[in-house]
Amino acid sequence: MSLVVVGSIAFDSVKTPFGERERMLGGSAVHFSLAASFFTEVRVVGPVGEDFGDDEYAVLHKRGVNTDEIERVEGGKTFFWSGDYEYDLNTAHTNDTQLGVFGEFDPKLSDDTKAADFLFLANIHPALQLQVRKACEGASFSGLDSMNLWIDSERDALAEVIGTVDLVFLNDAEIRMFAKEPNLVKAARKVMEMGPGVVVAKQGEYGASLFVGDRFFALPAFPLETVQDPTGAGDSFAGGFLGYMASLGADALSDQAQLRRAMTYGSVLASFNVEEFGTERVARLTRDEIDARYSELRRMTSLAELPGE
Amino acid sequence: MSLVVVGSIAFDSVKTPFGERERMLGGSAVHFSLAASFFTEVRVVGPVGEDFGDDEYAVLHKRGVNTDEIERVEGGKTFFWSGDYEYDLNTAHTNDTQLGVFGEFDPKLSDDTKAADFLFLANIHPALQLQVRKACEGASFSGLDSMNLWIDSERDALAEVIGTVDLVFLNDAEIRMFAKEPNLVKAARKVMEMGPGVVVAKQGEYGASLFVGDRFFALPAFPLETVQDPTGAGDSFAGGFLGYMASLGADALSDQAQLRRAMTYGSVLASFNVEEFGTERVARLTRDEIDARYSELRRMTSLAELPGE
Repeated sequence: MSLVVVGSIAFDSVKTPFGERERMLGGSAVHFSLAASFFTEVRVVGPVGEDFGDDEYAVLHKRGVNTDEIERVEGGKTFFWSGDYEYDLNTAHTNDTQLGVFGEFDPKLSDDTKAADFLFLANIHPALQLQVRKACEGASFSGLDSMNLWIDSERDALAEVIGTVDLVFLNDAEIRMFAKEPNLVKAARKVMEMGPGVVVAKQGEYGASLFVGDRFFALPAFPLETVQDPTGAGDSFAGGFLGYMASLGADALSDQAQLRRAMTYGSVLASFNVEEFGTERVARLTRDEIDARYSELRRMTSLAELPGE
Repeated sequence: MSLVVVGSIAFDSVKTPFGERERMLGGSAVHFSLAASFFTEVRVVGPVGEDFGDDEYAVLHKRGVNTDEIERVEGGKTFFWSGDYEYDLNTAHTNDTQLGVFGEFDPKLSDDTKAADFLFLANIHPALQLQVRKACEGASFSGLDSMNLWIDSERDALAEVIGTVDLVFLNDAEIRMFAKEPNLVKAARKVMEMGPGVVVAKQGEYGASLFVGDRFFALPAFPLETVQDPTGAGDSFAGGFLGYMASLGADALSDQAQLRRAMTYGSVLASFNVEEFGTERVARLTRDEIDARYSELRRMTSLAELPGE
């Protein structure tokens, strides 16, 4: 089924202990759509500037991502983020953010986009998320991501849009912060009481937890010896998760086993994302590599020994 | 098979956001032996003072723990620790430590103890761990725990005793710190290169990871709505893990599926430990409760839906 993502399309300058890159392709909608493209048809909504060129489009087109609704603003500049990570890669420090064309983005959605079955509101201003959510009211399933900035500064707007979606992806610390509740189980329940039937707590190098009503599932992260750049890991996780669910259709959303498989695909896509800078690794990833790591992760988390060990 | 633990037997004064207790029974050997007692015969080695009375012995005896080798020092005072935890319970702040009789502890081990099959060196000075390890050279399996204090101040002595054991339990941050390597997979391998075939990285509320050569297994923590006091969680984990392995015998140590079950029992025992203060919860725990939570945790981590969901 068709999947639409609205979010940032960006140039990122990133420095980690393992290297640095200047103005590489990035942004939440880009990482999300590349990850989701292995499972379903994805359509990206978002603005870019004149500096966004053929090389950037090519990365998306090579993965079959539909870019018809990327709005190229004449004379505008693409969203830019610059940041660095410390030794343990757990915390990003933002050095610079230039909204560029995102500062005045007013999404004009096509009928195809409005009719999408699955919708993902990547991490952008909650008011913009709400505007898109309302325009795509026919979506049978919608999810969103957000961040501490909006929890701090736009809590009411964020609460409003959370009330309109089916699934929330947030870091565990953000769920606690948003719910004002230090216990994660209670905090996730508070979020679910606001509307969403599913909450996914992203836990970085420790993996992710899935809350669906009273049901709980958790998955450790795939153990990696090489982590170069964590930027976009959460968006890749969401892309793998929702891409897989969209490939099954809306009926699968009440299927616990499928949601658990979606968690595993999310984790696998995130693990590839962080092995290299920006979109480098996912851009040349294959479905076979995804499936091989999926099986490996499944074996690593199974109490019983599974074939292949 | 018989399991011997050497470590602290203590009075703990603990304050958390959920309450406080003065001079309650605690210590690494106590938490370990209570947890292990559900699976096998456990013998505690360690000193106490005259202030250690019938009530404290009764908690151990009720669980069938062998206290013959608890050395009661006339005129001495039992090891005392006082600490508090912040809102999120992740970090303990030590307010006071009084070594008491532990300051001059020179273990005199009986022949029964020296002949134990399984040995656990709980978190005490590495030189003392080494002394006991050498005295119990017949043990077919030995494990140890340690802490940042010894990694900082007694690194060489710790490295020496690590070279003599089969299994190391440490927090993931401590493994990185000891190995001087920020990547956990590489850090665990460095520890294994020093001797131990098995490394368990304890990850607090996120669970634990098991490294055995090139094999990896990870398990999230059991999700709890009530966490009152994390003191002793790591020792309860080790007790559940090694108690279960000792119940199987030394042959099981090369059985990956059994090691994974041991991880699950460890996690279950740790989860009960933190629900109340000190030994309160584990002291009245039943094997049925353990098995029920084991099944629940198994269901929560299985990709397939298991019976009972």
